[in-house]
Amino acid sequence: MKRTEIASLGEFGLIDHLTKNIELKNTSSEKGVGDDAAVLSYANKKTLVTTDLLLEGIHFDLMYVPLKHLGYKSAVVNFSDIYAMNGQPKQITVSLGISKRFSVEDLELFYEGLSLACQEYGVDLVGGDTSSSLTGMAISVTCIGEGEEGKIVYRNGAKETDLICISGDLGAAFMGLQLLEREKAVYSGETDFQPDFTGKEYLLERQLKPEARKDIVKFLSEEGIVPTSMIDVSDGLSSELKHICKQSKVGCHIYEERIPIDYQTAMMAEQFNMNVSTVALNGGEDYELLFTVPLYLHDKVSKIKGVHVIGHITKEGLGLVMETRDGTEIELKAQGWDSIGEEK
Amino acid sequence: MKRTEIASLGEFGLIDHLTKNIELKNTSSEKGVGDDAAVLSYANKKTLVTTDLLLEGIHFDLMYVPLKHLGYKSAVVNFSDIYAMNGQPKQITVSLGISKRFSVEDLELFYEGLSLACQEYGVDLVGGDTSSSLTGMAISVTCIGEGEEGKIVYRNGAKETDLICISGDLGAAFMGLQLLEREKAVYSGETDFQPDFTGKEYLLERQLKPEARKDIVKFLSEEGIVPTSMIDVSDGLSSELKHICKQSKVGCHIYEERIPIDYQTAMMAEQFNMNVSTVALNGGEDYELLFTVPLYLHDKVSKIKGVHVIGHITKEGLGLVMETRDGTEIELKAQGWDSIGEEK
Repeated sequence: MKRTEIASLGEFGLIDHLTKNIELKNTSSEKGVGDDAAVLSYANKKTLVTTDLLLEGIHFDLMYVPLKHLGYKSAVVNFSDIYAMNGQPKQITVSLGISKRFSVEDLELFYEGLSLACQEYGVDLVGGDTSSSLTGMAISVTCIGEGEEGKIVYRNGAKETDLICISGDLGAAFMGLQLLEREKAVYSGETDFQPDFTGKEYLLERQLKPEARKDIVKFLSEEGIVPTSMIDVSDGLSSELKHICKQSKVGCHIYEERIPIDYQTAMMAEQFNMNVSTVALNGGEDYELLFTVPLYLHDKVSKIKGVHVIGHITKEGLGLVMETRDGTEIELKAQGWDSIGEEK
Repeated sequence: MKRTEIASLGEFGLIDHLTKNIELKNTSSEKGVGDDAAVLSYANKKTLVTTDLLLEGIHFDLMYVPLKHLGYKSAVVNFSDIYAMNGQPKQITVSLGISKRFSVEDLELFYEGLSLACQEYGVDLVGGDTSSSLTGMAISVTCIGEGEEGKIVYRNGAKETDLICISGDLGAAFMGLQLLEREKAVYSGETDFQPDFTGKEYLLERQLKPEARKDIVKFLSEEGIVPTSMIDVSDGLSSELKHICKQSKVGCHIYEERIPIDYQTAMMAEQFNMNVSTVALNGGEDYELLFTVPLYLHDKVSKIKGVHVIGHITKEGLGLVMETRDGTEIELKAQGWDSIGEEK
C-alpha cells in the first residue's frame, strides 16, 4: 500500500488535503474549516455542545480497530450525546494528535469514516486540525447541535411513576470487545490476524461501528412525546440510571427480565462464563437511549419500534432497585466502565 | 504537599469535585457541566466555535510549566481565536487525559488556572471530563463565542492598499521558551530547579501566561473599526501573513524596522546569537492580533494604544515581501512552528 509521509505535506497542507472535499450542507453552518473559528447561525434554536477526548490504549486499540471505523465511531458517539438531549447534531470539529507511524493514507481512512458518519447523520465537519503526538493517537471531537426551546431533555426531569424506557438492546458492544480482546491475545505474535467471527457479526458491529439513535428521537417527535429525562448509554445501564435518579432526585425499579438482550450477546456471555444481566447493566458503549415518560404514555411509547419499557421511577428514598427473574429485589450498583477508577 | 489519588474519587466524583464551584454568568449559558451536552442560547448572534488539542511533550513541558499556568494558557489561547474573528468568547469545555502520576491536587491547580482565565475574560466553563491516559497529559479545549452579524472578521477580506496592523510586540514568547529550554538542559538532573530569571520576566510571562487581546477588539469596536481581515499570531507573523494573503488572494509588503520587538526579546536574541527579526517573524505563540484596515483609517488605527502599522497589502502576483532595514526586499517564508513538519 502506498505510504505518503505526513511531513511531506506539513500541518497546513495535511489539513487542506484532508478537508478539501468537504461541503457544508446545513443552513446553520456559515463558515467551516479554514479560519480561526467556525461560524454558526443558531438564530431561533438552542445550541447544544458536547465534547469527547479519545486516547489510544484507553478508548481504542488500533490492533483491531480499523481507522475508518474509528473515524466513524468517534463522530457517532458524539452525535449520540446530542440526541440524548432530544436535539439534532449539526456540526463537528475534530482535532487529531498523531505520531510519525501514521501516513497520509491512514488519516485519509480516518477521515473517510468521519465523512461517512457526517453524511449519514446530516452533520457538517466545520473544523479540524492535526498536530504531532509523542506517543499514541489522540482524538478530540466536539459536536454542536440544535435543540428546540421547551423540547430539550435533561437528566433531571424524571418523576415518580414515570416509565423507564430503553431503545435497542444492551451488552452487545461489550461482548464484542471481549471477543476482540480474546482473539488479540490468542493471535498475539501472528502477523495474519484473521479470526473467524461467523455468528458474532452483530457483536463486532456494535463494538466497531455503533450507531446513534437518530430514529428514536424522530419517532418520539412524530408521536409528540417529549421525555421527562433522557441520557445515552455509554457507561452501562446502571451508571446511566444512577445519573438520572441522582439528578432527578428519585429512585427506580426495573425488571431484569425486561432488559433487552440480543441472542448473540447471551450466547457469548455464556461462552465467557459471564452473567448476561451484569453485562447488560454494566457493559457500556451501547449508545442506546435511556429515557423516562409519564405513565399515561405507556401505550404510545410501547408501540415505538425498538423501545422497551423496563420499569418505573419511584420515590427518592427507595433507591435503585432491580427485581430479578426469581422476584428478589436487589440494589443496582453502577460498576460501569469508569476509566479512571479502573486505571492500573 | 497533600496527595489525593484520583482513583479515590472516580471519574464522576473527580469532575463533580473540580467543577462544584462553577457558576454560570453569561446569559447565553443555559446549562453547563452535568448533562450529555451543554445548552447555549445564541438567539440574535452568530456562534463561533474553535478547538485545540494540547499534548504533553509537544505543546507543553511539565518540567517548567506550572499546572496553574497551563490551565490559564489552555483557555486563553482559545479565547484568542475567538477575538481573531472579532468575537467575544463566552463558553469553554475542557477534556483532560491524565495518567496516574497526577493527583487530585494537581488537577485542582490546573482548574484554578482555568477558572482564573474564565473569570478575567468573562467566560463560562460549561463542560468538562477527564479520562485516563497511558502516557502524557492531553488537554482538549473547545471555546464558543458570539459574533455580531456583519462584524465577524475572516482571513479572506484583505484588499490592495489596506494597512497591515499588529498589536503588542513579537518574539518574546519564543525567547521565553528558549530560555526555559536552556535552563532545563543546564539544570538537568538537579532537584532544585531555581534559575535566576531577573530581567527576563517579560519573556517568561509571555511564554507561561500569555493574554488574549480582548482590549484590542474593544478599542476597534469603540473606534467603529471593522478590520477587513484578522488572525491571531500563534505560529509566527510570516505564517499568519501567508494565511491572510492566500485566503484574500493578495500580496503584502512589510517593513522590518516597523516590526514591534520588546527590549528583553532583542537582548535575549543577541545572547542566543539569533537574528531578532527571524525570531519575531517565525517564533510564534505571541497571541497578538494581526489585522488589515482600509488605508483611510490610518490615523484612527495608529492612535490605538499597542497597535503598529507594519506595512500594506499589495496585488496577488507581488508575493509576500519584507523590506529590510537596509532597503533590500526579501521574500517572506513561513518557517513558523509547524509541529508536524518539524517532528523528529
